[in-house]
Amino acid sequence: MREYYTQMEAAKKGIVTPQMKAVAEKEQMDLRELMGKMASGEVAVPSNIHHTSLSPEGVGAGLRTKINVNLGISGDSKDYEREMKKVDMALDFGVESIMDLSNYGKTHDFREKLIEKSTAMIGTVPMYDAIGYLDKDLLEISAQDFLSVVEAHAREGVDFVTIHAGLNRRAVESFRREGRKMNIVSRGGSLLFAWMEMTGNENPFFEYYDQVLEILREHDVTISLGDALRPGCLEDGSDAGQIAELIEIGDLTRRAWAKDVQVLVEGPGHMAMDEIAANMKIQKRLCHNAPFYVLGPLVTDIAPGYDHITSAIGGAIAAASGADFLCYVTPAEHLRLPDVNDVREGIVASRIAAHAADIAKGIKGARTADDKMAAARHKMDWEEMFALAIDKEKAREYFESTPPADRHTCSMCGKMCAVRTTNMILEGKKVEFCSER
Amino acid sequence: MREYYTQMEAAKKGIVTPQMKAVAEKEQMDLRELMGKMASGEVAVPSNIHHTSLSPEGVGAGLRTKINVNLGISGDSKDYEREMKKVDMALDFGVESIMDLSNYGKTHDFREKLIEKSTAMIGTVPMYDAIGYLDKDLLEISAQDFLSVVEAHAREGVDFVTIHAGLNRRAVESFRREGRKMNIVSRGGSLLFAWMEMTGNENPFFEYYDQVLEILREHDVTISLGDALRPGCLEDGSDAGQIAELIEIGDLTRRAWAKDVQVLVEGPGHMAMDEIAANMKIQKRLCHNAPFYVLGPLVTDIAPGYDHITSAIGGAIAAASGADFLCYVTPAEHLRLPDVNDVREGIVASRIAAHAADIAKGIKGARTADDKMAAARHKMDWEEMFALAIDKEKAREYFESTPPADRHTCSMCGKMCAVRTTNMILEGKKVEFCSER
Repeated sequence: MREYYTQMEAAKKGIVTPQMKAVAEKEQMDLRELMGKMASGEVAVPSNIHHTSLSPEGVGAGLRTKINVNLGISGDSKDYEREMKKVDMALDFGVESIMDLSNYGKTHDFREKLIEKSTAMIGTVPMYDAIGYLDKDLLEISAQDFLSVVEAHAREGVDFVTIHAGLNRRAVESFRREGRKMNIVSRGGSLLFAWMEMTGNENPFFEYYDQVLEILREHDVTISLGDALRPGCLEDGSDAGQIAELIEIGDLTRRAWAKDVQVLVEGPGHMAMDEIAANMKIQKRLCHNAPFYVLGPLVTDIAPGYDHITSAIGGAIAAASGADFLCYVTPAEHLRLPDVNDVREGIVASRIAAHAADIAKGIKGARTADDKMAAARHKMDWEEMFALAIDKEKAREYFESTPPADRHTCSMCGKMCAVRTTNMILEGKKVEFCSER
Repeated sequence: MREYYTQMEAAKKGIVTPQMKAVAEKEQMDLRELMGKMASGEVAVPSNIHHTSLSPEGVGAGLRTKINVNLGISGDSKDYEREMKKVDMALDFGVESIMDLSNYGKTHDFREKLIEKSTAMIGTVPMYDAIGYLDKDLLEISAQDFLSVVEAHAREGVDFVTIHAGLNRRAVESFRREGRKMNIVSRGGSLLFAWMEMTGNENPFFEYYDQVLEILREHDVTISLGDALRPGCLEDGSDAGQIAELIEIGDLTRRAWAKDVQVLVEGPGHMAMDEIAANMKIQKRLCHNAPFYVLGPLVTDIAPGYDHITSAIGGAIAAASGADFLCYVTPAEHLRLPDVNDVREGIVASRIAAHAADIAKGIKGARTADDKMAAARHKMDWEEMFALAIDKEKAREYFESTPPADRHTCSMCGKMCAVRTTNMILEGKKVEFCSER
């Protein structure tokens, strides 16, 4: 008998774990305050007992907004090396979470290497992997088969798994009755829906939810309750299907907590800007303040090639109004599998959104780097500016590509630089420009 | 004696102009409603009487959010051809405004060509051009010299000019008393500040404001009241200097309207997300509902190389809460002069922000394209998706770069495509995946 099975159980029992200490220090938060939040479920610290390389992070109210990078092997992209490059880049950028969405071939080998090296928490969607792992077609898979994939991931050291347990018959009924433009755009959700419709069975993750929780509890895997009915276009945002599923997820959240299983709740999706704050509020209420993990929201549908930006806008607003964890979106969204550069653009956009929101929320220490950057700009200290930039390399490359005539400026304004002019006047110097001509 | 000098005068007199008709049609707005907004100053229709190629646009409350592109010749970048390429690209993307910020050499020739070809409205900052135009150093320039540059631009057909008339002694006193981290980051503002400090004179645009207004009225040039004290870092956001200048600008707004000169008011700058809505509210109040033209706001200081994204976040929030006109920011901001690709990235980011805000504000017709995109995605009609995309070329390039095995999907999910799976089930088909392996 272990002293505790999950971080939540430890928190409830008042047992201090190394993970709690690490998170409290990172967040500059009082350990007891953190434990209170973990005991109530407001904060999750996904940390599978088998993931020994993990540098644990907390996700939830009052903490820094975390970001997640998606990657993995798929039928159209079997390049293991390239996916590993994405992993290295993500770790270099300090992302807190990587979801391995592999759904093709030797997913196990990739996952094993990933977990071995990753200091970031690892998430998966066992449903994606089911067909490949079981080597069966969808219709041949049994409910217990699905659970066996969850167990395999749990044993391998995955810190959180997305499970679309909320897409039960009640939620499907709401979705079907109301109708919607894009139907189901969640990949895992669509597979589950197909399986339910073809077999006539209830959602296996819902039907055998207690069994799922037992598996997760054993290895301290956090359940990330997936939103199969997340809106896939503005028009479907905040509709009956989405909210009906959220109600189910709220109930499943309490059932998980009752077994000490930590919970994340996943959210939209595509959504007009003016609906985002309301959605965060409703989610927190319906799901009893569980940490909210959002994809996007994408604030317009007409910008394929730039959905890292549409989702940075939505993500920043979401995080500022309650979301705790942002899933990155790359420029390749809706168009193709992201390449390494897309991943970089996606990471930075997502980090900007999370950071801007942390400043707005008043998270402790969030403004420190910004204040330092302002000081460096005031002094025109380029090396310091590069060091403080989210993407140090790109900042330097840009600057060096068009070197200014005078290093105390940049090529944008040259000697007309406002900072230079004002500094000179405030230092009592005379300003001249004609020498430039 | 002309029947009317400015669009505002015509609106006040109830005279319908071709510009009003064009704008009412573009905005799907009742002509009388539009004229009421123009008469009160709530909407400006910048349209210099000499700019004959202009396709006029309205800027202000209840209208679509407009975007502006900055470009021009400078000491570190004298490539006329490249700047013209930026112009062509901006016009292709349908931007409503181009600011020519040229400050070096033959600015007149470039401006002349630009005004001749541009259907977009043209703005300038006469202060930038003063040193080059007058061929004098800053200290040698007299107050009347500055006014002569304004008149030259007005005669050439510039639709709106940025004039930092609000940076008077009162505003400077507020700024100096309070102190701030980045001081003055407005280029025109810093030049003016330097001139004021070196000569000991009051701001010439403030001192001779009535004369400025006479010039502008004569050619129907809209005054864009520049914010010399816009914050240059988060820490300076919403400070005494910024707001003190805004109070001056509010007064100057009324004085301009009294002479029938149309007004835009320029705004921040760098600013934490949670301050943006308040700033829009205060500006509209202090400036009597004049149209608000914002640069950014940039919601974090630590993302050089990605300030098109930091400003898309801020711009979207600003526009959703009252801003009417967004100045684009490119990835090159703070680092170098933007190249053609930076301009493209800047335009699209800014358009996304404006469009997302229009959806949030409920601007008529704003969601139409999004709804069409959703329909195209539902049908997996790639050609239609490309046609509806803000950047059609990039969307196509991305898709075609990694063609999926099955054209009814993309390479992101391949046959695991959620849309395809759900469509098949809802059409009563059986879904199989094993053939993919």
